[in-house]
Amino acid sequence: MDRLIEKIIKTGNPTVAGLDPKLDYLPESMIKASFDKYGETFEGAADAIFNFNKELIDALCDIVPAVKPQSAYYEMYGIEGIKCLEKTIEYAKSKGMYVILDAKRGDIGATSEAYAKAYLGKTELGGKSAAAFDPDGMTVNPYLGTDGVKPFADLCAANRKSIFVLVKTSNKSSGELQDLLSGGKPIYEHMADLVKQWGIDSLGTRGYSHVGAVVGATYPEQAAKLRQLMPHTYFLVPGYGAQGGKAEDVAKSFNGDGLGAIVNASRSIMCAYKKNGGGVGEAARAEAERMRDDITAAIK
Amino acid sequence: MDRLIEKIIKTGNPTVAGLDPKLDYLPESMIKASFDKYGETFEGAADAIFNFNKELIDALCDIVPAVKPQSAYYEMYGIEGIKCLEKTIEYAKSKGMYVILDAKRGDIGATSEAYAKAYLGKTELGGKSAAAFDPDGMTVNPYLGTDGVKPFADLCAANRKSIFVLVKTSNKSSGELQDLLSGGKPIYEHMADLVKQWGIDSLGTRGYSHVGAVVGATYPEQAAKLRQLMPHTYFLVPGYGAQGGKAEDVAKSFNGDGLGAIVNASRSIMCAYKKNGGGVGEAARAEAERMRDDITAAIK
Repeated sequence: MDRLIEKIIKTGNPTVAGLDPKLDYLPESMIKASFDKYGETFEGAADAIFNFNKELIDALCDIVPAVKPQSAYYEMYGIEGIKCLEKTIEYAKSKGMYVILDAKRGDIGATSEAYAKAYLGKTELGGKSAAAFDPDGMTVNPYLGTDGVKPFADLCAANRKSIFVLVKTSNKSSGELQDLLSGGKPIYEHMADLVKQWGIDSLGTRGYSHVGAVVGATYPEQAAKLRQLMPHTYFLVPGYGAQGGKAEDVAKSFNGDGLGAIVNASRSIMCAYKKNGGGVGEAARAEAERMRDDITAAIK
Repeated sequence: MDRLIEKIIKTGNPTVAGLDPKLDYLPESMIKASFDKYGETFEGAADAIFNFNKELIDALCDIVPAVKPQSAYYEMYGIEGIKCLEKTIEYAKSKGMYVILDAKRGDIGATSEAYAKAYLGKTELGGKSAAAFDPDGMTVNPYLGTDGVKPFADLCAANRKSIFVLVKTSNKSSGELQDLLSGGKPIYEHMADLVKQWGIDSLGTRGYSHVGAVVGATYPEQAAKLRQLMPHTYFLVPGYGAQGGKAEDVAKSFNGDGLGAIVNASRSIMCAYKKNGGGVGEAARAEAERMRDDITAAIK
């Protein structure tokens, strides 16, 4: 988590740009150029999406510390989409950005080990080994408990990577399971106890563990409570902007040191050009600056 | 779910063969042949794994109704691994098998829509659309509640596919979250209520919904209770064999009609040749027959 924190401090910007590139987020001219080249195919869509991502990364890389590609929006374009995801991860890293893959994997122990190798480690190939995908961090689903999460945490420790475990998600129906009360406290607080425990032995130089938590901006009161319960846990905060979370809401996920959270926005940055005009990159940069200023002002 | 049930009835076999092909499950000669051809690369590993899967599918397709590839074991070999997954899905379907992709996806609504399109539907490509991956069903993680599951259920209805939602998983630490008591009943029973509700409007000709549930063989008492609570829900039952579940345990997941569950075994079938000798396919077939007889006897 130290590596992410250094980038946040360097840019003075505790935000992450989500790369969830639905095809209809892209300018028509960009889609047309790729479809003219490759036909209306997965290859054509993946080419357009990579060009779009590249423009965003180029425009943001010196002022935004991290990107968060959402795996679903690449998997829906099949093999070509996943190649585009791989290229996007590599390109963002080459530009100095921290890459959090939003893949929400999680399974029984042996299978989580395979997922952890796929994204946070290396896969054995006879006498050799190689990284299948190589983001800096990823999101993890904790429904299966410790043995489904520990393989990810172990590879974070070994390879200086990070995970963000779902605790209280930003969506409307998150409470159906996460808010159920057990022993006088909601499930998401039980999850907070586990997340704290999974990370307790791995505090970095800034005092934060490599096991982070996903805490939605759309539930500010719950976030404030979770902030108290998990002082050494970095929060990945979705839900700002398009989903309705405001700067004063996300401020509750930060600690007194001005650290402790990184706030995601996807659509509002990717589609800023549609609302405010200008090129994709130019508009995204302006919106990223506005978001940075909005949030840093609210933290103070 | 009707399509799966017809295959179960036709083969007289309520089991599914897990295809979780760790490289060290494969015969050395098979790995060597592919590494000789492609080097110690992801391409070499994927080639060996596809050959292994093909031999298993060929040996099982007339006596086992379904296969369940576990996505993690393909993702760990990168793009080449995922190509192998795609080929495995297509090959098993071409041999008449029902394919349940064990991918445990689940996210906020808009993102679950993208995952659902990727695996249960089609992706728009300009004026056209195409299926990215095309299994018959998949597993889904319900941590995010209704809006994270409904997009999958909707595409099941539209495209005659099925999902199996995690309720009580087979792993050791599943109880950390799933067994917490809320309002006098464990979380997995709350999930059962939701699963029932998600599927209630979609009962097929055999009286089962397209929204199934994952219920581990390693927790037979819980399975018996869940069977009562969800009479119209098909259970996907992992944990038989290598994980410790026995025939009398999995029997509790069946209804009085002899239907209601499909039991998975992975390692015990894939690696039967190591234990019992013979070729991969031959040993897998013998073990699949033994498992079928063991379970059908326990149901009666």
